[in-house]
Amino acid sequence: MAKSKFEYVRGFEADDALLPNCWIVVRLDGRNFHRFAEQHEFKKPNDDRALHLMTKCAQTVMQELEDIAIAYGQSDEYSFVFKKKSKWFKRRASKFMTHVVSQFASSYVFYWKDYFKDQQLLYPPGFDGRIVLYPSDQNLKDYLSWRQADCHINNLYNTVFWMLVQRSGLTPVQAQDRLQGTLAGDKNEILFSEFNINYNNEPLMYRKGTVLIWQKVNEVITKKIKLPKETEEKEVEVTRTRTKVVPLHCDIIGDQFWEEYPEILAEDS
Amino acid sequence: MAKSKFEYVRGFEADDALLPNCWIVVRLDGRNFHRFAEQHEFKKPNDDRALHLMTKCAQTVMQELEDIAIAYGQSDEYSFVFKKKSKWFKRRASKFMTHVVSQFASSYVFYWKDYFKDQQLLYPPGFDGRIVLYPSDQNLKDYLSWRQADCHINNLYNTVFWMLVQRSGLTPVQAQDRLQGTLAGDKNEILFSEFNINYNNEPLMYRKGTVLIWQKVNEVITKKIKLPKETEEKEVEVTRTRTKVVPLHCDIIGDQFWEEYPEILAEDS
Amino acid sequence: MAKSKFEYVRGFEADDALLPNCWIVVRLDGRNFHRFAEQHEFKKPNDDRALHLMTKCAQTVMQELEDIAIAYGQSDEYSFVFKKKSKWFKRRASKFMTHVVSQFASSYVFYWKDYFKDQQLLYPPGFDGRIVLYPSDQNLKDYLSWRQADCHINNLYNTVFWMLVQRSGLTPVQAQDRLQGTLAGDKNEILFSEFNINYNNEPLMYRKGTVLIWQKVNEVITKKIKLPKETEEKEVEVTRTRTKVVPLHCDIIGDQFWEEYPEILAEDS
Amino acid sequence: MAKSKFEYVRGFEADDALLPNCWIVVRLDGRNFHRFAEQHEFKKPNDDRALHLMTKCAQTVMQELEDIAIAYGQSDEYSFVFKKKSKWFKRRASKFMTHVVSQFASSYVFYWKDYFKDQQLLYPPGFDGRIVLYPSDQNLKDYLSWRQADCHINNLYNTVFWMLVQRSGLTPVQAQDRLQGTLAGDKNEILFSEFNINYNNEPLMYRKGTVLIWQKVNEVITKKIKLPKETEEKEVEVTRTRTKVVPLHCDIIGDQFWEEYPEILAEDS
Repeated sequence: MAKSKFEYVRGFEADDALLPNCWIVVRLDGRNFHRFAEQHEFKKPNDDRALHLMTKCAQTVMQELEDIAIAYGQSDEYSFVFKKKSKWFKRRASKFMTHVVSQFASSYVFYWKDYFKDQQLLYPPGFDGRIVLYPSDQNLKDYLSWRQADCHINNLYNTVFWMLVQRSGLTPVQAQDRLQGTLAGDKNEILFSEFNINYNNEPLMYRKGTVLIWQKVNEVITKKIKLPKETEEKEVEVTRTRTKVVPLHCDIIGDQFWEEYPEILAEDS
Repeated sequence: MAKSKFEYVRGFEADDALLPNCWIVVRLDGRNFHRFAEQHEFKKPNDDRALHLMTKCAQTVMQELEDIAIAYGQSDEYSFVFKKKSKWFKRRASKFMTHVVSQFASSYVFYWKDYFKDQQLLYPPGFDGRIVLYPSDQNLKDYLSWRQADCHINNLYNTVFWMLVQRSGLTPVQAQDRLQGTLAGDKNEILFSEFNINYNNEPLMYRKGTVLIWQKVNEVITKKIKLPKETEEKEVEVTRTRTKVVPLHCDIIGDQFWEEYPEILAEDS
Repeated sequence: MAKSKFEYVRGFEADDALLPNCWIVVRLDGRNFHRFAEQHEFKKPNDDRALHLMTKCAQTVMQELEDIAIAYGQSDEYSFVFKKKSKWFKRRASKFMTHVVSQFASSYVFYWKDYFKDQQLLYPPGFDGRIVLYPSDQNLKDYLSWRQADCHINNLYNTVFWMLVQRSGLTPVQAQDRLQGTLAGDKNEILFSEFNINYNNEPLMYRKGTVLIWQKVNEVITKKIKLPKETEEKEVEVTRTRTKVVPLHCDIIGDQFWEEYPEILAEDS
Repeated sequence: MAKSKFEYVRGFEADDALLPNCWIVVRLDGRNFHRFAEQHEFKKPNDDRALHLMTKCAQTVMQELEDIAIAYGQSDEYSFVFKKKSKWFKRRASKFMTHVVSQFASSYVFYWKDYFKDQQLLYPPGFDGRIVLYPSDQNLKDYLSWRQADCHINNLYNTVFWMLVQRSGLTPVQAQDRLQGTLAGDKNEILFSEFNINYNNEPLMYRKGTVLIWQKVNEVITKKIKLPKETEEKEVEVTRTRTKVVPLHCDIIGDQFWEEYPEILAEDS
């Protein structure tokens, strides 16, 4: 049972090292999440439990893996951006993809009950992932803008669509017909005139998706200490600075976000 | 907020279609499972609960995804072999890898309690995956032989190692020193003379790992039917043939296995 | 002027090793050879000088490079098949492609005058190349059949087309119109009834293209030797066996060719 | 002889499109040029004929192919830099590599006699090529600096080595031993003290290699024109601006070159 006789098969594994000095983006999507959402009675057009669970999983991915500078999520997708200079696992593409999706998938089941309470998880969900390189900062910002523009377009559509179905009693097909060919302005107008909804007042999380960045956070913790010459422990409050993954629901298409958080794109970050 | 302005970024995604007419192997491994095993009190050298859970996850992967002809697992790793002719997702490498590992990872958490009962899962585990192509049937058989030979070598070592630690009271370092430079025959001899263990009588699952194949299985189910001219339902037993994923613990290095199951390698399977 | 400061740029070169145990095909095509043929007054539909020069270049490629088992050429293209087991330059794709096309291109200019005599070469021609892997022998045979079928289809068309232009005085556009929608049988019929040409009697090189294989060839050479006990040299004829690249113009689509030359596909060849 | 039955083999060709928005560098090297140089009696350490022929070939490549922004050559190698935004042949790597090396190789034979006069070309030379991507301008500049630093190091070594052999009568092995472990300063000192050579006065082409860039050049040409109301043609001089490939022998490691020719790296160039 000589191992060596068979070991030649290792030579068939291809080297999939990614080009250095490029931003590495891994985007994952839920597999068949349309069906999954129905079976688990997700609220339409947005289910807070599902969105918060997605973000919890993405935070876990950022904390467990290395070199993720920023993540962006909406609906059943999340994009993770690894630093240009990352040398994690020698930049092997398969490592980045599989670590991200497996950590995300196991976290999804693990944290499910924290968000869905009595709503039982019926089966283990799947996710697919892909990896894309972006050579310049502008390319990366455009990628994230593309995803956020996509979030906006879909959410505006879904918001009107479900109002027409839920409040006006249209069938899904009728609602679809009604929206056929409408522009953003038309949809805003329907929302306002028919449902008294100002789209711009809809929750930011729905309209902008979720941005995850690393932030220094001051935590006040209570410690028990015993001072010299005293016999009893005393409780004192200590302020500790930690770096945490923080969710934001803001515009990332304009320049303001990047001016406010220059460290995200900083070469040596 | 024009989407089109940013959509050029889609053009940065590379085509990762795999060469046609080759066996596609996706192998996954637990991430930091040494630590994970300790924290979850896995029995040494083999934990039946952990092995059965791995196999349950692999079965789920085979049932949920398409075109998997055979799978082989041992310890914290599993290999999935997709058919040569598979056109699943246009043979895009990233799709194969991420679907396998994400389905496996979510299943691991989902089915955990069925195998580990009161042993709580402390955190969501990660898995990494890789993809390798094998052009010929012989290459594929040699790949699987390589993994099974690896199983044998590791299990023999671990069996003696843990006997020395658990029964003879050696420290891990002492046990390691004792086994340094020993051949398979030496290890068998230690097991036999010092612990009265005939290695060949150890459970096949430990020595051979687990092979998963598709098998036609006859199931006898009870159906309630109402015959014409009768007013009451009657219970009858019906035999139904289904194709199921079946675990085997047998040698796959020799020819016998492949002669017994020729359909696994059959071109049109 | 420290070299080391810049040497990091070497790390940007990707590993392009080809999958082991697959046939490696490099196919090259003349760049803008339609224009090139006109400017150098190639005879239509086939120019023997040009075809023989192509084959001379291909023979040079086979002799200069390593591990080429067979080559096939027609018109301004040539395909080179490297052995499945070849480890030449660690199977790096770029090495195979660039060595083939550069050797072919320099040979084209070098040997031009041997075939084109007084017809001056006006400028240095370019060639493009690509590389494709074929996992099975059948795939490889089908690849070569594809090229030979292409040769047949194009040559039949061109033979009729140029007859219509050269003998019947049609303009190229008229000839094209005449042939629009015709099947092979129609074209054979035009050749026979209008030009008294039996297509099957056209030269094999035009209809089948050129196959290059390695053959043992007996050469009779004259050597001067001095026998013991004699004082003068004597001329003797010696038969020497050499392995040479030999051109054939035969069918390679059917089984007969492969049965006649089994060594081409032999694993250990 | 149905073509369609075999056409499936086209599906085995992999998509080798290069990542957008990166500099594309193709570097070629002479194959076995050590032997080639000896057989063609190249002058040591530098043969002007050979260097000028290399540059003539590189100019031809730049003129015949598209989107080459700059080229750099030394010894028997040349690097061609294609623009970041180039969409030539859909950025397929094989196209870039094979067009460059085949055009270079055919030009080498074609223009040989213009530089080597009576020195016959004995056989057609080969070249190998590779392709590398550089995401940032700095990466590209560092790549070119790497090649120029390499030129300097090799040329300084070769200059001393051949002085020791040609003037001091050392054998190659003795010269090699003498130079073992010497630093740049030591080599400069040997040249100066033993051969009265100030290395910095050596020709720039040897020390810096050759940079090829596109330059607007004013050409004064003589045209025959016939003015209205005149009956005879008159010769007039006309100044015409053309874009030509111009060779420079200057430092490209420092900033000055890039400040002087900002258009080379300009995004829209």
